[in-house]
Amino acid sequence: MNLTEQMTELARNAKAAAHQMTRLNTADKNTSLVAMADAIEANAAAIREANAMDMETGRSMELPQPMLDRLLLDDSRITGMANGLREVAALPDPVGRVLDERNRPSGLKLKKIAAPIGVVVMIYESRPNVTADAAGLCFKSSNVTILRGGKEALHSNQIIARLMTEAGENACEAFPAHAIQVVPTTDRAAIPELLSLTEFVDLCIPRGGEGLIRAVAECSKVPVIKHYKGICSVYLDAAADADKAIAITVNSKTHRTGVCNAMETLLIDKAIAPALLPQVAEALRAKGVELRVDKTGAGILGGDITAATSADWDTEFLDLICAVRVVDGIDGAIAHINAHGSGHTDSIVTENVTTARRFQQEVDSSTVFWNASTRFSDGGEFGMGAEIGISTDKIGARGPMGLEELTTYKWIGEGNGLTRD
Amino acid sequence: MNLTEQMTELARNAKAAAHQMTRLNTADKNTSLVAMADAIEANAAAIREANAMDMETGRSMELPQPMLDRLLLDDSRITGMANGLREVAALPDPVGRVLDERNRPSGLKLKKIAAPIGVVVMIYESRPNVTADAAGLCFKSSNVTILRGGKEALHSNQIIARLMTEAGENACEAFPAHAIQVVPTTDRAAIPELLSLTEFVDLCIPRGGEGLIRAVAECSKVPVIKHYKGICSVYLDAAADADKAIAITVNSKTHRTGVCNAMETLLIDKAIAPALLPQVAEALRAKGVELRVDKTGAGILGGDITAATSADWDTEFLDLICAVRVVDGIDGAIAHINAHGSGHTDSIVTENVTTARRFQQEVDSSTVFWNASTRFSDGGEFGMGAEIGISTDKIGARGPMGLEELTTYKWIGEGNGLTRD
Repeated sequence: MNLTEQMTELARNAKAAAHQMTRLNTADKNTSLVAMADAIEANAAAIREANAMDMETGRSMELPQPMLDRLLLDDSRITGMANGLREVAALPDPVGRVLDERNRPSGLKLKKIAAPIGVVVMIYESRPNVTADAAGLCFKSSNVTILRGGKEALHSNQIIARLMTEAGENACEAFPAHAIQVVPTTDRAAIPELLSLTEFVDLCIPRGGEGLIRAVAECSKVPVIKHYKGICSVYLDAAADADKAIAITVNSKTHRTGVCNAMETLLIDKAIAPALLPQVAEALRAKGVELRVDKTGAGILGGDITAATSADWDTEFLDLICAVRVVDGIDGAIAHINAHGSGHTDSIVTENVTTARRFQQEVDSSTVFWNASTRFSDGGEFGMGAEIGISTDKIGARGPMGLEELTTYKWIGEGNGLTRD
Repeated sequence: MNLTEQMTELARNAKAAAHQMTRLNTADKNTSLVAMADAIEANAAAIREANAMDMETGRSMELPQPMLDRLLLDDSRITGMANGLREVAALPDPVGRVLDERNRPSGLKLKKIAAPIGVVVMIYESRPNVTADAAGLCFKSSNVTILRGGKEALHSNQIIARLMTEAGENACEAFPAHAIQVVPTTDRAAIPELLSLTEFVDLCIPRGGEGLIRAVAECSKVPVIKHYKGICSVYLDAAADADKAIAITVNSKTHRTGVCNAMETLLIDKAIAPALLPQVAEALRAKGVELRVDKTGAGILGGDITAATSADWDTEFLDLICAVRVVDGIDGAIAHINAHGSGHTDSIVTENVTTARRFQQEVDSSTVFWNASTRFSDGGEFGMGAEIGISTDKIGARGPMGLEELTTYKWIGEGNGLTRD
């Protein structure tokens, strides 16, 4: 088989499994997930062995240490995968929820019901624990997964998918053999092949760096739900409480720096900047943050300041670096965010409810906070239980994506021999 | 300006208008819509005059009569446009609806709120009344429209958009000047240019024939919500009531034939076919329907029967033609529909609730009816008040699209100086 035939067969099998999945009930799915968790723990040695081959490949490719760290599956990560699957088993089933219900004058009884999306292609980098997480979440939402992790992780991914499939088949008679598949080749050309099969593939969710995600979105013929980056801003309004302003700014920037919901840009109202900016700057610097400040801000702070360049407004630093800009009130803040933000998460600090509501209405981002750190933009903090990604798209999921965001809906209607006049 | 610059300016203006739109409240929008309706009626003569130029162009291009009919704006269609806008004004505002609400243990108060999508490009054929309908629905949902109708309709579309804009500006101080724009050129290359501007355009909704929609989907870099065609099936189960089966089959096929929710394929359980198929066939033929029947069905019906070819299972006839297939129970019906249907609307006729529920769960279509005609798959019948299209996509809107389907959501959260531990 050539690559096209191989990918077509993979995707056709997935589509057939997607139909079989619609017959599984909640108990079938939960029993399978718990059995998968047990199998992963029981076969920890085999997983470590497969992973050792991947680590060897990674070292021979001279991968940098942080990438090798992410590739590693030790006992604690293996237990983490198993517990993750048990947590997903314990979450409510997102399929079948009644989203709307209408009884029409014609006699038509209508319901809008949450339904699985179908075949979901997951593309991610070399973190093999994502394999279990993503496959588990897709399975719980009655979706079929085709998994494509980094090429260095192939052995790890294959054994995880195989253990999950075998456990599912043993636990549940109706378990579809192709519910969880790993793309069996590391050929890069497999991705565009797979993502051209609109007849079989319903959705692609890429996770990873901006380059990977752009390459996927560029080549895909199927819908892609994604976020490229998180350029999150905190805006300190003239009516901000100083203590809250400092706490939220420092937490948003420094709680974790390498994550998409960390603050990258601090905006401050010119009316309060002379009083507040020096305190905020001192608190950030005390945490080791390098400030890149616009002209007005530099004038207020004085001393030896790094000037912000225009590129800084559009940069996701993912580091202890913060762009700082003095703006002309809420209009300036909203204009800056809608022009330079990434539609991810932005926060206003103010005691003025009218200003807060305007900010939340006019900032065009998936999540808009008032007096809260941008770090709360997270599936766990939102109570989703588990997160498969964050979307800055507007069609389909927006913001943190949990189980519910892995469903679409269908309308089901009934009459009693109803015909239209 | 070259075409790229022209489209970029158009789209940039639209994006700026999209931000201004978020400041309009429900009363602003409704007052504007009623003023637009009045302006269209008050300027009927000018609209007819512009339309006469388009009709002249259409005749000189030797357009077929049905296309000329659709291009025509007479007084009744002009009144229809005005009344359509008044009806949209009377519908509830879809923006700001609270879709979900959560108070988290951290102290974070979260709401999931319906929000406008932003800039919507509408692409359609030469029905200038669609201009007012689409612009009105987008405006009510706080979206900005860029309208691109058939080239023969340019003068009609331009005067409608101009009258709506002037009326809006007179009625509402905050009305954005670029809320409703018509692509000012008939150059075909304008469409791919416009749909490559992911920075400014949020969504494209194409309406028209399959060729138009495929061409748009093929070239677009922005999300497209669409349906290609409606290959709708009715399945007559072994437990079908004969009277309901005949009534629903005839209504689904013949109530209107040229529409996407008309039945194209009749599926009948082999257990009931010998008894029921002859009656159903007679009722269809009495309405002038040509049957194209599979081998088993032909054996039952006898006489001079047109044999169905395999292409017939995948054809949207849009005419008094019906493909007929005898299937092996509900499994055969579901397998046929998921393989050959277009994911639009399918219906089962049965008195068995278990079979009905299985059909509704396993058929992967936007709308799945039980004992009701496929013709009910329609925004009006669903109580949406107005319909901007029907989607067979699974990401974003699915099924009939009304005002609510023209919104996305955002998460808004508040704390009281909340930082993450």
